[in-house]
Amino acid sequence: MSAIPVEIDTPDIMVELDVLERNIERMAAALQTKGLRLRPHAKTHKMPEIAARQLAAGAVGLTVATIGEAEVFADHGATDLFIAYPLWIGPRQAQRLQKLATRARVAIGTDSAEAAETAGRHLGAAAGDIEVMVEIDSGHHRSGVRPEQAVAVARAATRAGLRVAGVFTFPGHGYAPGMPATAAEQEQQALARAAELLAAAGFEVTRVSGGSTPTAELTGTSAATEVRPGVYVFGDAQQLELGRCTTADIALTVAATVVSRHEGDDTTPRRVVLDAGSKILGGDRAAWATGFGRLMDHPEARITALSEHHATVAWPDDSGLPALGERLRVIPNHVCVAVNLVDDVAVVNGGTLVTRWQVAARGRNS
Amino acid sequence: MSAIPVEIDTPDIMVELDVLERNIERMAAALQTKGLRLRPHAKTHKMPEIAARQLAAGAVGLTVATIGEAEVFADHGATDLFIAYPLWIGPRQAQRLQKLATRARVAIGTDSAEAAETAGRHLGAAAGDIEVMVEIDSGHHRSGVRPEQAVAVARAATRAGLRVAGVFTFPGHGYAPGMPATAAEQEQQALARAAELLAAAGFEVTRVSGGSTPTAELTGTSAATEVRPGVYVFGDAQQLELGRCTTADIALTVAATVVSRHEGDDTTPRRVVLDAGSKILGGDRAAWATGFGRLMDHPEARITALSEHHATVAWPDDSGLPALGERLRVIPNHVCVAVNLVDDVAVVNGGTLVTRWQVAARGRNS
Repeated sequence: MSAIPVEIDTPDIMVELDVLERNIERMAAALQTKGLRLRPHAKTHKMPEIAARQLAAGAVGLTVATIGEAEVFADHGATDLFIAYPLWIGPRQAQRLQKLATRARVAIGTDSAEAAETAGRHLGAAAGDIEVMVEIDSGHHRSGVRPEQAVAVARAATRAGLRVAGVFTFPGHGYAPGMPATAAEQEQQALARAAELLAAAGFEVTRVSGGSTPTAELTGTSAATEVRPGVYVFGDAQQLELGRCTTADIALTVAATVVSRHEGDDTTPRRVVLDAGSKILGGDRAAWATGFGRLMDHPEARITALSEHHATVAWPDDSGLPALGERLRVIPNHVCVAVNLVDDVAVVNGGTLVTRWQVAARGRNS
Repeated sequence: MSAIPVEIDTPDIMVELDVLERNIERMAAALQTKGLRLRPHAKTHKMPEIAARQLAAGAVGLTVATIGEAEVFADHGATDLFIAYPLWIGPRQAQRLQKLATRARVAIGTDSAEAAETAGRHLGAAAGDIEVMVEIDSGHHRSGVRPEQAVAVARAATRAGLRVAGVFTFPGHGYAPGMPATAAEQEQQALARAAELLAAAGFEVTRVSGGSTPTAELTGTSAATEVRPGVYVFGDAQQLELGRCTTADIALTVAATVVSRHEGDDTTPRRVVLDAGSKILGGDRAAWATGFGRLMDHPEARITALSEHHATVAWPDDSGLPALGERLRVIPNHVCVAVNLVDDVAVVNGGTLVTRWQVAARGRNS
């Protein structure tokens, strides 16, 4: 068990360096063995130091969610960026993409003829510098078209002057108990079908992109050429409760202090309150989650309520409550939103503070 | 209906200036009429420009949640600050509080003898410069002691050299349908009882502090001397669905663009996807909320799912789906966490961009 370095004031986010590096290596090795390219989603960490480690371990490029994130990683030397999002491109977005394309290979997502046409119109002559990936709905029912609709979108993109590179999907319905295998299967089928239809229509399909942390290692090479997991670098309570990682794989925790302690009585529950709330853990809670995050060293405890600066933690009767002032490590439910709440993180190794890293792309929502 | 100014790229947070100022005036007037002092919670907005307007309208000082927030508002001229949180004071926190007390009147919360003793030990001679408010649990069962335990905590604070000023509570259980009146009633009883016990034990009780946005206007003067609402400046979807405000009172929305649009079929739902996700709206969703926020101009729509950069919006069959590229205003469920996600906000008035304000205390979690 790693202690929380004395220099750290709570609440603060700590990244355990050796666990982070092990996670990066393991995913890279697993995908290399399968012959799948890795294009990790950098929205999870938003930190150039982590992107550099992913690329050094063999990632072919980075995935990002916004033009702003792409700009930050390009500023730090990234040269191959996929904005895996159905962007709506107006004049200002076109100008930024155009500039970005002068220093990096840039791909964007689209899921409609209208979006492709609008992008082409505003990009003008620069449209040919931007690759387009048609987004497919593989069962998550968020953005994306059915495989049967992919050709129409791809044709509109071509007419608009954009270069169609392939298809992508996000099997987000894999984030639920018992669902990773089903979602990975549906992802495969949807990608294979869409790629087949595009090829039959005369498109050269060079990239077929899938993946998420719960499904990445289940994705087969029969359809996909690359996967885009993000959370695997840190792990989080969702992955833990889905059985996709163990506490030994958790590389990011929130250091917190017990600020209120109550043994409970007839009318009030037995609990402690930590100084880490939704403004550092994030408020995400899936319907199947057991609470608002987990305690690294107390699997028996449950975070039953979360305010902005308070985590209320219920403790079983047969386990002693921690003392006031005790410092505990909290595993956020969804690590991507936790990282986005801080300007920098403490990088630690075995209880020692090594350095701090800036969350360079924090808040780059557009 | 206000349009979204053309200069704004989505997603972005917009503050409607005239609505903001009306909200500030109305709460100030309502409490003045009742003879209750207003000490608004600045964690909601984190912006000096809004704090200045609250103070100009008669607020006696500001409430904040962390030492970091107090430092930011003191930097911008605030001279009376209550950190309404059961702080655990170590040496570094003591040093910061000591420095803060040289330029502002400072009160902190406490709910245990241990926290008070630790604070006194680290503050040393400066302890007498810090006021202490004993936190009472009025039914929310987060931090705070029962009224009967307040005297023991107050005595420990006095022994530790701190100045006991009074008691406070947060009736957070008022954030649920049908609960504001009950919570306000329990708040009154708990505060009255705690204040009475402290007075009987010889303490001079100068401040009795309650309140939250759902309960502030229900709080009576029989017990409380001041209230600390925060959300009232902006309103949000929670207040709307609790019936504590109307859409005309909503001063903050997230400008978003329709990036994906699906009429739906046998296997996929009818929906649009907006480019505003949990990284700008916040992920809060109370059990009783109808979705992950509301659409300002489409009360019939429901945000059924929220990813980091996607809001999936279900639309009733008898209402036409908005077009791709259309810009809509989203009301966040919980405005305090939304504001904390951006570095600055667009200040607008009737569809015109007036200026931008920095969220100066964003991310000040400790």
